[in-house]
Amino acid sequence: MPQQNDVNRRILLAAHPRGLPTPADFRLEETAVPVPGDGQVLLRTLYLSLDPYMRNLMEEIGPGYAPPVPLGAPMVGGTVSRVVQSHREGLRTGDLVLANAGWQDYALSDGSDLTPLGDMPQPSRALGGLGMPAFTAYVGLLDIGQPRAGETVVVAAATGAVGSVVGQIARLKGARVVGIAGGADKCRHAVEVLGFDACIDRNDPAFAQLLADACRDGIDVYFENVGGAVFDAVLPLLNVGARVPVCGFIAHYNDADVPAGPDRLPRVTAAILQKRICMQGFIILDHYATRYDAFRRDMAAWLAAGQVTLREDVVDGLENAPAAFIGLLQGRNFGKLVVLVADR
Amino acid sequence: MPQQNDVNRRILLAAHPRGLPTPADFRLEETAVPVPGDGQVLLRTLYLSLDPYMRNLMEEIGPGYAPPVPLGAPMVGGTVSRVVQSHREGLRTGDLVLANAGWQDYALSDGSDLTPLGDMPQPSRALGGLGMPAFTAYVGLLDIGQPRAGETVVVAAATGAVGSVVGQIARLKGARVVGIAGGADKCRHAVEVLGFDACIDRNDPAFAQLLADACRDGIDVYFENVGGAVFDAVLPLLNVGARVPVCGFIAHYNDADVPAGPDRLPRVTAAILQKRICMQGFIILDHYATRYDAFRRDMAAWLAAGQVTLREDVVDGLENAPAAFIGLLQGRNFGKLVVLVADR
Repeated sequence: MPQQNDVNRRILLAAHPRGLPTPADFRLEETAVPVPGDGQVLLRTLYLSLDPYMRNLMEEIGPGYAPPVPLGAPMVGGTVSRVVQSHREGLRTGDLVLANAGWQDYALSDGSDLTPLGDMPQPSRALGGLGMPAFTAYVGLLDIGQPRAGETVVVAAATGAVGSVVGQIARLKGARVVGIAGGADKCRHAVEVLGFDACIDRNDPAFAQLLADACRDGIDVYFENVGGAVFDAVLPLLNVGARVPVCGFIAHYNDADVPAGPDRLPRVTAAILQKRICMQGFIILDHYATRYDAFRRDMAAWLAAGQVTLREDVVDGLENAPAAFIGLLQGRNFGKLVVLVADR
Repeated sequence: MPQQNDVNRRILLAAHPRGLPTPADFRLEETAVPVPGDGQVLLRTLYLSLDPYMRNLMEEIGPGYAPPVPLGAPMVGGTVSRVVQSHREGLRTGDLVLANAGWQDYALSDGSDLTPLGDMPQPSRALGGLGMPAFTAYVGLLDIGQPRAGETVVVAAATGAVGSVVGQIARLKGARVVGIAGGADKCRHAVEVLGFDACIDRNDPAFAQLLADACRDGIDVYFENVGGAVFDAVLPLLNVGARVPVCGFIAHYNDADVPAGPDRLPRVTAAILQKRICMQGFIILDHYATRYDAFRRDMAAWLAAGQVTLREDVVDGLENAPAAFIGLLQGRNFGKLVVLVADR
């Protein structure tokens, strides 16, 4: 069912998932298109971004850095939206904006959370290569990871929105880059298209050995966005003085219970000590005020020069967002996942 | 049996301990006093330092930052020693030096690892308040912990050689300091003598709740030197942006096997991410070249002004070193543990 002019389809959080979300945790509802009040604009969603952090906002108790989605409320998410009615100075009907309209066809905004996109070609880039995921890669890698020329940088989810940008920026800084991805197609893409020095298939039974073989000089920067078995394979390869920016743990977002033993913490903390490792968590929301301008300038130049590319995985239709999101948590996407909600 | 002029008692590593060391893991051997060759000096041990890191050097495979003690070799350790014979320019009979003579009455040195102590009053200080433990506290707290005035700093082993200095320096920097120690006597000492704002008995059944009560504004710096149950109680209290210098894990040094579950790692890494925590391991050997001079200058001034004090726990006689060391690993010492091997 495509977008219509007189119906607002909204995908609500129907239940807090236990483990991997299922379609029953979401509910599609049709309501009237909202009417903008004084100072408000009506936005129509063109592209909806789907990102792993959303899983954390589906819990009853949120992660702290952002409020959880209440039951019965629309799922939140970044969007590229079109202003279709404006009662607000400075925003005109037809304007393209970066917004937080969530998983729905239409939304209201007072304009304070909107970023005008002008006549940006391929505006979905505002959700990927010029947006939050790439900014996450930029801050985590450069400010915390601080790769030096000749060092080895490892990143998992290597063809995903964050990982692929981490690896390409690390290459630009002269580092050797080893990616980790699920499947031969993604690994080939990481090497042939993204320019990684190597990419290891995390599904290979010999994964840990293959990673060690690809990191003969150890690992100086491990950009942590998955956790789980990948981290276990990385840990013994970390060099003295290694940096581990901690961006996410997609392998654990669906943990329903405290995982069984053995307890891996003492081994990890011993490595942190013995190898003088710096493990530093970050939340990208903290860094817009100080680092976003530099990111936009650098990234726009890299994209224009073709030095960084970001594959998009475009899913057609808002109604397919839940299935696409569940697939994202299983690593079934290939590139930055966006939902095409309306084409103009 | 006291030190003699013609016998060198040496305490050797007899076996790699499994879990907590036992007296049988050590062996006392009597040999001839070694004879210094050209360019060498003969040292007599006055004070031997006993420190938790030594437990790691008793393993067959060492921790990486220092070589393990081979079976049948003397245990290593920092000492205050007296030059009793010198065949080396610049070192005279009678000179007092900081040395690495290990667990023995006599040792040879070519002088390269010796630091002259002049006529230092209370020379055992060179092993504590003016030595490696206090330097560890200084670098870990100031360079990694970076406490700001008004912040809350928590340190365990609060009356130990490192912990007591961490807390006192943090107070000097204007932080609120909460110590953790084993037993009411130590807690009283931390508050009344060392000037901590509070000190919680880790043996109290309500320990976690008492710690939370003492840290109403959360924890900004946790100086990690114990691990185990203390860390579990600290974790939920850490504030956004908290710093965790990782200095040691005395609670785990005697782990014989990988600990059983549940696996605490996902919970810890989730906290690192959500609270943007920086966990940074350090090994004090790395910092002598760049930070030792500043430490000596600051610490000498603080000691002279009585702003920092360090209680010493002096054990009499080299033959008692193994039992004292085993007690150290169980938290039975009270202050910086040193062995008085000879009194002049």
